[in-house]
Amino acid sequence: MPHIPSVDTVASASSKESNTRAIFLLAAKKPPYNVYGNPFYKFAGYGNVFSVNKDGGMEANIQNYEYSPETAVHGMVFDPTETYLYSADMWGNKIWTHKKDSETGQLTLVDSVDAPAPGDHPRWVEMHPSGNYLYALMEAGNRIAVYVIDERTHVPVFTQHTYPLVPPGLNLKMYRADVTFVTQSGKYLFATSRANSFDLTGYISAFRLNPEGSIDRQLFLNPTPTSGGHSNAVSPCPWTDEWIALTDDEKGGIEIYRFRDELLARVARLEVKDPGFCMNAIWYD
Amino acid sequence: MPHIPSVDTVASASSKESNTRAIFLLAAKKPPYNVYGNPFYKFAGYGNVFSVNKDGGMEANIQNYEYSPETAVHGMVFDPTETYLYSADMWGNKIWTHKKDSETGQLTLVDSVDAPAPGDHPRWVEMHPSGNYLYALMEAGNRIAVYVIDERTHVPVFTQHTYPLVPPGLNLKMYRADVTFVTQSGKYLFATSRANSFDLTGYISAFRLNPEGSIDRQLFLNPTPTSGGHSNAVSPCPWTDEWIALTDDEKGGIEIYRFRDELLARVARLEVKDPGFCMNAIWYD
Amino acid sequence: MPHIPSVDTVASASSKESNTRAIFLLAAKKPPYNVYGNPFYKFAGYGNVFSVNKDGGMEANIQNYEYSPETAVHGMVFDPTETYLYSADMWGNKIWTHKKDSETGQLTLVDSVDAPAPGDHPRWVEMHPSGNYLYALMEAGNRIAVYVIDERTHVPVFTQHTYPLVPPGLNLKMYRADVTFVTQSGKYLFATSRANSFDLTGYISAFRLNPEGSIDRQLFLNPTPTSGGHSNAVSPCPWTDEWIALTDDEKGGIEIYRFRDELLARVARLEVKDPGFCMNAIWYD
Amino acid sequence: MPHIPSVDTVASASSKESNTRAIFLLAAKKPPYNVYGNPFYKFAGYGNVFSVNKDGGMEANIQNYEYSPETAVHGMVFDPTETYLYSADMWGNKIWTHKKDSETGQLTLVDSVDAPAPGDHPRWVEMHPSGNYLYALMEAGNRIAVYVIDERTHVPVFTQHTYPLVPPGLNLKMYRADVTFVTQSGKYLFATSRANSFDLTGYISAFRLNPEGSIDRQLFLNPTPTSGGHSNAVSPCPWTDEWIALTDDEKGGIEIYRFRDELLARVARLEVKDPGFCMNAIWYD
Repeated sequence: MPHIPSVDTVASASSKESNTRAIFLLAAKKPPYNVYGNPFYKFAGYGNVFSVNKDGGMEANIQNYEYSPETAVHGMVFDPTETYLYSADMWGNKIWTHKKDSETGQLTLVDSVDAPAPGDHPRWVEMHPSGNYLYALMEAGNRIAVYVIDERTHVPVFTQHTYPLVPPGLNLKMYRADVTFVTQSGKYLFATSRANSFDLTGYISAFRLNPEGSIDRQLFLNPTPTSGGHSNAVSPCPWTDEWIALTDDEKGGIEIYRFRDELLARVARLEVKDPGFCMNAIWYD
Repeated sequence: MPHIPSVDTVASASSKESNTRAIFLLAAKKPPYNVYGNPFYKFAGYGNVFSVNKDGGMEANIQNYEYSPETAVHGMVFDPTETYLYSADMWGNKIWTHKKDSETGQLTLVDSVDAPAPGDHPRWVEMHPSGNYLYALMEAGNRIAVYVIDERTHVPVFTQHTYPLVPPGLNLKMYRADVTFVTQSGKYLFATSRANSFDLTGYISAFRLNPEGSIDRQLFLNPTPTSGGHSNAVSPCPWTDEWIALTDDEKGGIEIYRFRDELLARVARLEVKDPGFCMNAIWYD
Repeated sequence: MPHIPSVDTVASASSKESNTRAIFLLAAKKPPYNVYGNPFYKFAGYGNVFSVNKDGGMEANIQNYEYSPETAVHGMVFDPTETYLYSADMWGNKIWTHKKDSETGQLTLVDSVDAPAPGDHPRWVEMHPSGNYLYALMEAGNRIAVYVIDERTHVPVFTQHTYPLVPPGLNLKMYRADVTFVTQSGKYLFATSRANSFDLTGYISAFRLNPEGSIDRQLFLNPTPTSGGHSNAVSPCPWTDEWIALTDDEKGGIEIYRFRDELLARVARLEVKDPGFCMNAIWYD
Repeated sequence: MPHIPSVDTVASASSKESNTRAIFLLAAKKPPYNVYGNPFYKFAGYGNVFSVNKDGGMEANIQNYEYSPETAVHGMVFDPTETYLYSADMWGNKIWTHKKDSETGQLTLVDSVDAPAPGDHPRWVEMHPSGNYLYALMEAGNRIAVYVIDERTHVPVFTQHTYPLVPPGLNLKMYRADVTFVTQSGKYLFATSRANSFDLTGYISAFRLNPEGSIDRQLFLNPTPTSGGHSNAVSPCPWTDEWIALTDDEKGGIEIYRFRDELLARVARLEVKDPGFCMNAIWYD
């Protein structure tokens, strides 16, 4: 039985005056193949679960699960068993843990943990294939915070280790970290940040991971060609560590990078001068 | 108000037939300067808190706090604020967390967590000066398990990182890890293991620590001159990282090592052919 | 007594039809404060030594010392005692060693050694403050080759270690490595390469050095904002490791970078739309 | 045509009063399969080349090649092509390079280079399978000095890198480094030292090698069970990196070590109470 959001919140979220927007979708890979979505900005205190029909089309809103009034979740990730869901709550400055019912796919709250610093603003979460470690990207903190998963509670516990996503000495207010992904081998983590001015560049960074999932070391922190605009989203290729895509909506570009010997080379850039191009890249085989 | 142990347990622990023995004492460094002790072997399910008189002498048993029926605690450590007490429970195969009342010095159970593997047998716990990381030495597992302290609950959470205290490929049943200590600088961790046969040697190992308290890397895993007998206890000097003492009750020896450039040199050995010499070394300035 | 260049070579170098140009000057810091120069392109088989007057002005060409007919030297460096001079010979594909007379400042040939690969084209040489190691930047090879100085002969000997100045997997023909400098602390080495197309970027790299002068590891290999044009010349600040200048004559820019925690941040860029601006940066205190 | 040693030297070496002894033999693995030997102590200024018969038996002394009057060579190694022979000259404090004639197998002097410090006393030389790097063990210096081979002259050139074979802070006069060998994979180098008193232990150390042959890092510097007596000679197994033999003539022992995960475990010790047992171990498949 789904939670019932308070009338006020729902009403406000759907009003024309509100800036509330749908921002993130995560499709389960196990039955019943629900889809998990997040609104963003104001009145975003509930996440939404949708069932799908036989063809994979979205069918019905089967649950609106509660976060908190100040919540604005921008990214989520399942653990490898798809039993626990972790949500990066930018405005609530928290990482949330929910448990997924294996039959209904509906969610129950387990716990939430504050980000390491008050203004960190967790925007994205990624998990090591082992399920042992969670990486939380802090948009305002412009850093990656490393969490170990408590084996008993499945809640992420901060390891006190963070790594910068813009070089030390810059004014962090001019940057917003964006997304972070593990490569398909599980051996490397990529992350990016965007600049708030077209006079500055964003940054792309990679990390070597230990077999346990903790970070061995930061390999580089390279400037991107542009600020990245609203995007600068990195997208590692799902079937090899060698190729990485990066999107940029300042100039409207998508770039392909080759990752070899733990160094990064830009090998192609395509620009499409269409407003809003390009936010995210998806790989087809 | 202290817990009241069950009649059976106390009766058995104090009976002449029982092998129950007092094994470990930890003196608080903050008022009211209680002393915390552990029995061992059978009927060791309660820890004991003692008050002290003006001269520092032990005065009264003010609390017997409960662990579990199978418990046999061999080592304990306070966090740097002396608010939380961690106990290594060999026979219960657990790490316990208790909270100390700042006025009475009495303990309340917070939680207990199982060792990483069923037969690990935690024997000793040590903490980084930052309070962020706890190192649990596993007597039977012959390894160090690294735990991060959960900032909210103060409970240790396993990081999935362990380090061997005997070289890989040896029969672990022939060895029993002993103790582990951080050097006074907080930059290095030493740990030892003993061999169960006089034909084998024990081992002494050191680890370089990160500023956060996690282990950067294992520096060495050197054989000790003897099996170490029941001892092979390492004791870093409290005012410098350069000198390390090691005790051995196979032959009755105490040795001094110099630790320089992250390498270890034995510089002196004294043997006293008295049975039981020498279990532990204490440094005087 | 200076060598006498063959009539043909000198005649050709100074003819209007020749592309021979003066390209590099190195002022001695010890008496008699001679200045050592190199012509480039064709007919560049002789280096030139000039005396100076009391005010430091150049006075007379006191020696034209011979390299080889195919020589085109683009960079030179003295050892710390200013007794040996090393020349990077791009077209001769060699590193030359000359000995400087401490009284006259004139040069005598010691030896020359081929670059590691036939098409490497050594363009720049830099030396560790210890005098133990020489770093030769290969323009076409787009790499740094590390040489140890033979204590007896003072000739550089290749250590078999090279490091890439453009990321692996790129077409090296589209890049030309530029210059390399040790920071004032002697702890880091910077090097750059330029791209041959405005569609590509150049690269800037830094290396951590061992106390002996060998390279510990490559810290990063970052793209520069432009191809760098003919320049992309890095210039570390002479009194701190924290600031680095980079010049670019594609768009006519000079940039300042902050080097902190072994990461690099661009903090300022000035563009002057004057053709040829800006080839090299010099720091004033 | 062999060199003719001076009458005085040969006469003295073979006189009953002299302490001159044969100490080292190296059998060529290429035709004509000569055997190369060294005398030691006094009057050891010539090395000796012997031909072999069809059965591999030593046949005739075909060359006595000259070192220097103060020479006492204790170890030699061929480069991988078996064209150059390197000799560790303890009393001459030098490393010698000779070229072997590919038809006669006789030697011609190329050069000799002094050890890094006056009292180093090179005792043993080992070469990386690439032929790029030579490791010279210094008996009195109790250290490994790393040399790169000059590609043009084939003479070893000191890289300024040395590594201790006894821990820092000990009195080097109480120790004599012994031998050093690369494991069959070419990835690791082992080396040992002996103590001059039965109250002290010797040491065994291992190094991880870079693909080029330079040393990446020292893995450990473990005490051996005894002083090692005159021996403490390490002998890696020729067909695997996993097993290492160590001989000891203080107590007359041979030990087998397992090398796994870059850590060392003693797994067996055999003692034979026969005077002189045991100086060197040879592996049979």
